[in-house]
Amino acid sequence: MPEACRIGLLGHGTVGGAFARLLHERADAVALTTGRRPELAGVLRRGSGDFDAILADSEIVVELIGGLDPARDYVSRALSAGRHVVTANKQLLAEHGQELAAVAREHRVQLRFEAAVGGVVPVIRVLQESLAAAHVERLHGIVNGTTNFILTRMAERGASYGDALAEAQALGYAEADPTDDVTGKDAAAKMAILARLAFDTPVRLDEVRYEGIEHLTADDMQYARELGLGLKLIGTAERVDGGLSVRVHPAFLYGAHPLASIHGPFNAVTIESEAITEVTLSGPGAGGPQTASAVLGDVVTAMRAAPGGAPTGPPPRPLPIVADVESAFYLHVDVADRPGVLAQLAQILGLQGISVKSFVQRGMGADARLTMVLHPVLESKVGVAVDLIAGLDVVRARPRAIRVIDEEF
Amino acid sequence: MPEACRIGLLGHGTVGGAFARLLHERADAVALTTGRRPELAGVLRRGSGDFDAILADSEIVVELIGGLDPARDYVSRALSAGRHVVTANKQLLAEHGQELAAVAREHRVQLRFEAAVGGVVPVIRVLQESLAAAHVERLHGIVNGTTNFILTRMAERGASYGDALAEAQALGYAEADPTDDVTGKDAAAKMAILARLAFDTPVRLDEVRYEGIEHLTADDMQYARELGLGLKLIGTAERVDGGLSVRVHPAFLYGAHPLASIHGPFNAVTIESEAITEVTLSGPGAGGPQTASAVLGDVVTAMRAAPGGAPTGPPPRPLPIVADVESAFYLHVDVADRPGVLAQLAQILGLQGISVKSFVQRGMGADARLTMVLHPVLESKVGVAVDLIAGLDVVRARPRAIRVIDEEF
Repeated sequence: MPEACRIGLLGHGTVGGAFARLLHERADAVALTTGRRPELAGVLRRGSGDFDAILADSEIVVELIGGLDPARDYVSRALSAGRHVVTANKQLLAEHGQELAAVAREHRVQLRFEAAVGGVVPVIRVLQESLAAAHVERLHGIVNGTTNFILTRMAERGASYGDALAEAQALGYAEADPTDDVTGKDAAAKMAILARLAFDTPVRLDEVRYEGIEHLTADDMQYARELGLGLKLIGTAERVDGGLSVRVHPAFLYGAHPLASIHGPFNAVTIESEAITEVTLSGPGAGGPQTASAVLGDVVTAMRAAPGGAPTGPPPRPLPIVADVESAFYLHVDVADRPGVLAQLAQILGLQGISVKSFVQRGMGADARLTMVLHPVLESKVGVAVDLIAGLDVVRARPRAIRVIDEEF
Repeated sequence: MPEACRIGLLGHGTVGGAFARLLHERADAVALTTGRRPELAGVLRRGSGDFDAILADSEIVVELIGGLDPARDYVSRALSAGRHVVTANKQLLAEHGQELAAVAREHRVQLRFEAAVGGVVPVIRVLQESLAAAHVERLHGIVNGTTNFILTRMAERGASYGDALAEAQALGYAEADPTDDVTGKDAAAKMAILARLAFDTPVRLDEVRYEGIEHLTADDMQYARELGLGLKLIGTAERVDGGLSVRVHPAFLYGAHPLASIHGPFNAVTIESEAITEVTLSGPGAGGPQTASAVLGDVVTAMRAAPGGAPTGPPPRPLPIVADVESAFYLHVDVADRPGVLAQLAQILGLQGISVKSFVQRGMGADARLTMVLHPVLESKVGVAVDLIAGLDVVRARPRAIRVIDEEF
């Protein structure tokens, strides 16, 4: 009979329940792998169980309550008591990850959170371990399955944003209130976590700029199809001028980009560095069983680590956050088809130092639309140009500016 | 000044040299991450350096000599002396991996070999750690960049096999003698290593059946293009009837399969299990810098592990190897366009219990070709049918049978 390893479980909702079942199912396999058999020391449910008693009886604490309070307090106390902690709590990590990592480092225990980002995609481990010694230059991610499902439906079926969202809600891929997903806020929190790990730097949630997918139209998708591009909600974290830019926005991707072929409610992350060129990890976004499986992988790793072993990560080396970066853009303007319109647009773009790479007019008269691809330029300048163009009386709606991630740029 | 960690380096060829440079470049970053600064204890070159002296002075031994002899002896002695060992030696792992894993387990040290399979793709770590507690059902891999480059060129440009191979050689993606790559032998060795890890079972090299890409034609590519399929050299390891099948062969993949969009000299592996659904990892195949980077990731992990810590893997639980499995097939037959031909083919297929899913005739008269897709059937039966069809006097060349990996099957 192998020795036991006592696991304290905080939370017994969808993920907590799935984890308890999986732990029971796979306990023998874990015993073969680690030499010890994991067993539940106790379960803290809403209204039953006692945190202190569970902590006292556990070697590893698994936090699946979610939210900030009381999760933050429990995780901090467990780490301070010398327990390894495994959590799937994205919000907690995004808001207080830096602080909790410092507590873990101080007490030489592990704080593991593979399940917090990317569903089953093992991006946290790969960043922390495989690439621990790599100098990561850039990371692109599709880290929100809901929006990727919606965009896939719009692309494949020409569906409107509204119809695709309704379908996502009917299938359970989007919540009744989809705000956090479709505005890019959820993806921004995940990018803060990934950027902190990839670049060993503190990243506050309010330092991540984000835009959502609510304004994308069937027209934009049509453009993507014609040019063989993907249109995705992309999180980016990259070194820029000695600092770091972290942002989330829709982007056109050239067809051969590894993220262009990620369809449906999937997550994927591409990590670039000079030594490795690039690595892409992909898989389904989070569901109960997938999240539980990622948690169990972390538990197994924590079981193998001696308490008081090496820290799980380096101390932070802060990089300045760069708010304004250069991007190539697609610009879509609905205009009255009148002489002089183009000259007015060209003047505005020229004054911002924006140069146009290609230009197409579609439709005629009151239905005319101009689409342009702009050479890389500071995003702030495009913002100013869009404001100015929106103010022209020949323009029928606010122009749409969408970033382009292209091989050439 | 952080404490040092002494690394003994065996071999100083392309990869060894790249590793020595990378270790020097990244030593400070590793020191921040692990708390200790890695430094070379000594380098064993052809004709200089002394293994015993290097071993005595090292905490971790990195084997980058390649080949079986003397690498096998050195690795075994280093493990027995209580040293963690990191190697990129695919041949050594494929032939003696089981034996060396047992030595590592006995001495409670780590034997790490991320660089042996998949270039920078961290599939070894994900199998050993993220999925340590998962019940893997199936693993599909593109684990040979040379053949994937050749097939990509054939697909994109309609190139013949010979022309695409010549281009791969000119670009340095294929060796002057490409036999090990194009016959599938190299991929078979890597699949033996992956299957051993994924299923905790010994897999001998001669238990992996393999076919190469030498017989694929522009015609096969044309068929793939028309049907929106990928044609790739695929390694498969999967549970079948309580046993394990490990094999390498060309296969048509439906367009949405994660491996269908892996182009050029890239590697990728898709791991399937009930709990995770599937995870795909992809990146460039091995080059000197990429391999060195994977080796350094392993060194960092070994630095974090205390000597005498937990074993890196469970003891093997042998599964019987299943040699004959069911596959769907595409069958291409060049025939004389004569009455009765189809009846003869149908009779042969029917006698083997093979049922035809779809059927197309192309060309007329002496140029007629029949292509069929067969419902899943034991591969041995297809082999018998192909032999019988090849013996018909209305058939102009040996039929080509290529497996099909389809969503429906």
